[in-house]
Amino acid sequence: MQAQADAWRREGQHIALVPTMGFLHAGHLSLVRLARERADRVVVSIFVNPTQFGPGEDLEAYPRNPERDRDLLEAEGVDVLFLPSTAEMYPEGYQTRVSLDRLPQHLCGVSRPIHFGGVATVVIKLLHIAKPHLAVFGEKDYQQLLVVRRMVRDLNLDVEIVGGPTVREADGLAMSSRNAYLAEGQRPAALTLSQALANARKQVAEGERQAAVVIASAVATIQSEAETAIDYVKICDPETLEDISEIDRPVRMALAVRVGHSRLIDNTALLPPNPSSSASAQGETP
Amino acid sequence: MQAQADAWRREGQHIALVPTMGFLHAGHLSLVRLARERADRVVVSIFVNPTQFGPGEDLEAYPRNPERDRDLLEAEGVDVLFLPSTAEMYPEGYQTRVSLDRLPQHLCGVSRPIHFGGVATVVIKLLHIAKPHLAVFGEKDYQQLLVVRRMVRDLNLDVEIVGGPTVREADGLAMSSRNAYLAEGQRPAALTLSQALANARKQVAEGERQAAVVIASAVATIQSEAETAIDYVKICDPETLEDISEIDRPVRMALAVRVGHSRLIDNTALLPPNPSSSASAQGETP
Repeated sequence: MQAQADAWRREGQHIALVPTMGFLHAGHLSLVRLARERADRVVVSIFVNPTQFGPGEDLEAYPRNPERDRDLLEAEGVDVLFLPSTAEMYPEGYQTRVSLDRLPQHLCGVSRPIHFGGVATVVIKLLHIAKPHLAVFGEKDYQQLLVVRRMVRDLNLDVEIVGGPTVREADGLAMSSRNAYLAEGQRPAALTLSQALANARKQVAEGERQAAVVIASAVATIQSEAETAIDYVKICDPETLEDISEIDRPVRMALAVRVGHSRLIDNTALLPPNPSSSASAQGETP
Repeated sequence: MQAQADAWRREGQHIALVPTMGFLHAGHLSLVRLARERADRVVVSIFVNPTQFGPGEDLEAYPRNPERDRDLLEAEGVDVLFLPSTAEMYPEGYQTRVSLDRLPQHLCGVSRPIHFGGVATVVIKLLHIAKPHLAVFGEKDYQQLLVVRRMVRDLNLDVEIVGGPTVREADGLAMSSRNAYLAEGQRPAALTLSQALANARKQVAEGERQAAVVIASAVATIQSEAETAIDYVKICDPETLEDISEIDRPVRMALAVRVGHSRLIDNTALLPPNPSSSASAQGETP
């Protein structure tokens, strides 16, 4: 892979990497198309990275279908499918980790304390292996996108990180390989995530500025379905992920909800109608 | 720096990086010459990295002389002196660390618990910034060399790590910027390190296989000077740094000794005269 990337780079070709865990859906394919638009060569990696799963999480159960994935990627004109084994990625004697101090303290990192260190570590490995000019990650995994951006900036990696918009089913459910875990009757429960976010966008667009009010509405929406169990409902700074209490600028709302065996996540930007003029003036005046 | 490295790489030129903390001596210059022999372009970085110094260590006192360093590097025909500020390397919001699980548990890592994480982190940053094909590190800092090699291998960095032999004063003292801390009368104490290592090499060459015996001789040599305080005297596996008890193959001996305000380190390979033939046969037979 490195030799191929070197050869492409010598020819002046731009390389894009789309890291995935496979079991591809339309969300992944939208990232592949984004990569195709922005680069001459597209590499897609499929690796279900064990170091980002905690004890009791769904590493073994994670859905896999490499043959179907390969066909889908061939149809998209992907140049390389990089499909390493765990033993190739973490050989005997392996002992190096990348970690971040603050971003993983929020949202999913609270209930998944080793997750984002595992993500940061495997992503830097994939970036070193595929040597892309840009790498594409879905905004559905918003915290992951921020972690990767922060790592790339902090460690001076010369690669552009591009976020691709969340792709949704017709009924609003954010596409996820983990939707495969949903049982027949759980769809109404799963839909409460996107419904809660849509309600929140509407509330904020209509002038609601209190994060606690918007959060309470979202909690009520989600709890209206009996099969839901909330992990978190947060409104936070879109860069640091720290809680905010007043929505006086563009912020991020993020949810994690268990529905049966699935842990579903979703997120949205919340854009207040008239950003506080005094706040933006403060931002420009010493 | 990245744009310069990209331009060189497009021209097919090989780049070597020599990372230093400055206050250059003949040991550093030998690494620069090694780099020159192996590459078309040589980049030397000077950065006294605060994150590898613990509380109470000598960050503020660390000797600096950038003007003299620049003159020395110009005379060596170095192409770029990369001299970043701390604020450029660790801007506001910085939060990413690279760490290793096991190598830092040994030798200097015991009394300097944050040191090698700081080293690994700044080295990966410098490798991303200068984009070298090879990077040169002195064997005097043997544990650092192993940490960097392990990190590069684990994280799939496409760079060759080259170790340069320790350069010594005429009397045997390993060259180090920290030798500048030695007071006039402390030379005999400082020389006990290289004397202990030379004695150990002789003992082992003459057939001594018990690590404990060799260590006891070294401790006696060092303690023969009143101004010494031993941090450690170890004989260990040359890759994992784990203690070994029988010298039946090439191993590493490493020392750390405080002399006045200086903490001095040194190390050597110990080569037994006849490596156990049964052991090497075992290595080749399933």
